[in-house]
Amino acid sequence: MKKPRILILGAGYGGLMTAVKLQKKLGVNDASITLVNKHDYHYESTWLHEVAAGTIAPDKARFAIKDIINTSKIDFVQDTVLSIEPDDKKVILEDGELEYDYLVVGLGFEAATFGIPGLLENAFTIGNINQSRLIREHIDYNFAMYNNEKEKKPERLTIVVGGGGFTGIEFLGELANRVPELCKEYDIDRDQVRIINVEGAPTILPGFDPELVEYAMNSLEKRGVEFKLGAMLKECTPDSITFEKDGEQETIATKTTVWAAGVRANSIVEKSGLEHNRGKVEVSPELRAPSHPEVFVVGDCALIMNEETGRPYPPTAQIAMQEAEVCADNLAKLVKGEDELEAFEFINRGTVASLGHSDAMGAVFGDKKLFGFTASLMKKVIDNRSLFKLGGIGLLLKKGKFNIF
Amino acid sequence: MKKPRILILGAGYGGLMTAVKLQKKLGVNDASITLVNKHDYHYESTWLHEVAAGTIAPDKARFAIKDIINTSKIDFVQDTVLSIEPDDKKVILEDGELEYDYLVVGLGFEAATFGIPGLLENAFTIGNINQSRLIREHIDYNFAMYNNEKEKKPERLTIVVGGGGFTGIEFLGELANRVPELCKEYDIDRDQVRIINVEGAPTILPGFDPELVEYAMNSLEKRGVEFKLGAMLKECTPDSITFEKDGEQETIATKTTVWAAGVRANSIVEKSGLEHNRGKVEVSPELRAPSHPEVFVVGDCALIMNEETGRPYPPTAQIAMQEAEVCADNLAKLVKGEDELEAFEFINRGTVASLGHSDAMGAVFGDKKLFGFTASLMKKVIDNRSLFKLGGIGLLLKKGKFNIF
Repeated sequence: MKKPRILILGAGYGGLMTAVKLQKKLGVNDASITLVNKHDYHYESTWLHEVAAGTIAPDKARFAIKDIINTSKIDFVQDTVLSIEPDDKKVILEDGELEYDYLVVGLGFEAATFGIPGLLENAFTIGNINQSRLIREHIDYNFAMYNNEKEKKPERLTIVVGGGGFTGIEFLGELANRVPELCKEYDIDRDQVRIINVEGAPTILPGFDPELVEYAMNSLEKRGVEFKLGAMLKECTPDSITFEKDGEQETIATKTTVWAAGVRANSIVEKSGLEHNRGKVEVSPELRAPSHPEVFVVGDCALIMNEETGRPYPPTAQIAMQEAEVCADNLAKLVKGEDELEAFEFINRGTVASLGHSDAMGAVFGDKKLFGFTASLMKKVIDNRSLFKLGGIGLLLKKGKFNIF
Repeated sequence: MKKPRILILGAGYGGLMTAVKLQKKLGVNDASITLVNKHDYHYESTWLHEVAAGTIAPDKARFAIKDIINTSKIDFVQDTVLSIEPDDKKVILEDGELEYDYLVVGLGFEAATFGIPGLLENAFTIGNINQSRLIREHIDYNFAMYNNEKEKKPERLTIVVGGGGFTGIEFLGELANRVPELCKEYDIDRDQVRIINVEGAPTILPGFDPELVEYAMNSLEKRGVEFKLGAMLKECTPDSITFEKDGEQETIATKTTVWAAGVRANSIVEKSGLEHNRGKVEVSPELRAPSHPEVFVVGDCALIMNEETGRPYPPTAQIAMQEAEVCADNLAKLVKGEDELEAFEFINRGTVASLGHSDAMGAVFGDKKLFGFTASLMKKVIDNRSLFKLGGIGLLLKKGKFNIF
C-alpha cells in the first residue's frame, strides 16, 4: 500500500506547528510529509514590529526550519508556491510541482490596501523579515540624511503609522522607545521628530476594554505619539500622506508611512478555486475546506466564526497554533484510518499588546486586566511559550526573551 | 594692559591640539583664548572610514570638546565660520563675529571633485561624522532593499570607491570585512556583491614602497576587492559611474560611489584674501601667514615644502598635531613678549595604513616595514597615541582601541 502524501504549505505558526505535531504523531512508514516554504527560516510574525522599529535584531525573530523539524520524517522544500490546483490535487511551485493526498494550507496573510491611492506603492508594511528590516533601514537612513542637507526636511523625521490596531499600536510602542536613541545617535533634537498614528475608527484598538485603550494611549502620548482618530487615509505619496477628518482634508509631509491597518489572506487561496469568503476558506469544525475535504486550512487563510459574537476570530498566532494542533491530530487519524475527527474549539488564553520594551497592557485568564511592567512580563511569557511549543527548550533558550529589565 | 585675544578656528587635530597645548602654557591672565567649532565635538577624521563602513559606532570616533578643554581658560563657541577678514583682524560667524589679535586657522579639508560631472551631486565623501554615518546607512539601506524587489538590482550591491590613496584603501579594508556581515544579515550571497576601486594612477598608494603596495592589494583582492587601475573617472550618476581605461570607456551600475580621491583646503582660506597657493597658505617656518604674521595656519590649510623631496608634505593628522605644538609654543612666546620663535620641523614617525580590523601595512622608525597583525597593532597604538596627546589618559581609556583580537 502506498504511503499517503501530506503536503504542508507555509512554515508560519500554523504550517510549522502542524509539521512539528505530525512528526511526533506519525512514524516514517505512516506517511510521507513535505513542508514547503519560501525561506529556509520561520519568522515570528508577532515580533516583526520590533525588527521594523530596530529594537531587536532580525535574526532574533527567526530561526532555521531545519533546526526544529525532523528531516528524517519531513522533506523540506524551499520554494515559492505559485498556485494550488485542488481538483488535480497538486500545487505549482516556482521550480516544480508537488502532488498530494492531503494538503495543509498555511500561507498566512498579505497587506490589504483597500485601493487607497499610492498606498501599495509608497507605504511600508510589516509583513516579513525583509520588509521589516527595510523599515528600520529606511528610518535610520532618513535620520542620517537629515543633518547632511542644508535645507532641513522635516518629512525625514516624521513617521506615520496607518492603523491603530494591534500591530500598529505595538509598532508605535517600539518606535516611541527607539526614536530617542536615534536622536542621540544622529544629533537630532527629539522635538523635531513626529510620530503620528492615523486611525479611521474613533478609538485605537477597537474591541479592547476601554480602560486598556486609555492606558495604551496615555503611555504612547507620554512618549510623544500623536493620534489622529476618526481620520481616513485618502492618499499616500513618497513624501506625504493625506487624510480626511471631520470633513476636512489634511496633508502631512512624511517620507515614512507604515501601513498596519489591513491584512487579508494570501491571495493564492482566492485564486485556487477553493470555495472562499472574501479570500478565506470558511472551514468545517475539523478545519477542512468544504468543497475539498482532503484540504485543511490553518491560520490567517482560515475563517472560523466565533459563535458568541457572530464575528470571525481575528487572525492571530494564538489561534493559528491551536488550529495546527487539531489539524495535525485529524491528519494523523485519517492516515491511521480513523473516522472520528476532532472539532476545533478556541481556548482564549488572553491577549497582551506590547507598548515597548517594558510596558504593555492586556487581558488574560478570562478578563483579568494587566498593565505596565506586569503585562510586559506576561507578554514575554507568551512569546516564549510560543517558541517552546514550536521548538522545545532548545529553541526557547536560543531565541527566548529573557531581557526582563 | 589689555590681554591679547587668541582665536582658534576649528577643533580638528590642528586646532584642538593648539588649544590643549595653549591651556597648559598660558595662565588665565596671559591671554583670552577662544575656540570656534561647528560641532560641540571633535571627530577623529582618520577613523571616519571605519564609521562609513559601519565597523565602528559613530560615537566611538568623536568626543565632546568640553571634555578636554579647560573652560576656565578657553571660551568655546559652537558656530560656523563664514569668512576670515585678515585686514580687519576679524572672523565672521553664522551667528556673530569675533575680533582677534592672533588667529589660528585649523579649518581642515573639503572634498575636491575636479569638475568631474555628477561627482559633487552623486558621490559620497568621508568628510565628517554626518557624511560618514550616511554612507553606512546608504549601504545598509541598499542591502535591505535588495530582497524586497522582484526585479533584483545589482547596482544596490555594487560599491565603487574612487581613489586608491590612503583613505580609499583604508575604507576598502573596512568594507571588505563588513560586506560578509551585511550579506549574512540581509540573506545575500557574497558573490553578488562587488567592491570596486577606481584609481587613475597605475598603482594604488602612490609614493608607498612597492612591497607594501603589493601586500595591500593582495590582502584586499583576497577579500574580493576589484581594482581598476589607470582608470580615470569620467562621470557619476545616482545609478552608475563611467571611467576611461586604455582609451575605452566603461560604465558600471552602482548606487554607491564613495569619492576618496581628492581633498583640498577649506575654501574659506582661499576666499579670505590671505596669500595662498592653490587654496593653502604657504606658511613661514614659524607657521605664520607671510602676508599677515599674526595669523598662524595649521593642518590641512597649511602648505609646507618637504625640502628633501621638493614636494609639499601631505595633509595628515600626524603633521597637523606636530604643527599645533609649534604653533602653541610660538603663540605663548609672542604673548610673553619673546622674539625668538620656533621653526617647524617634521619628525616622520612613520605611516601605517589599516586594511581592516586585523590587517595593515606601513613603515615606521625610518624604513622598517610592517605587515599584517603586527602592523594593525601598531596602527592601534598610533590611534591611541593621538587620543592620549589630545586628551590624556581619561580620553584614551574612554575612546581608545583596545579590541586587539
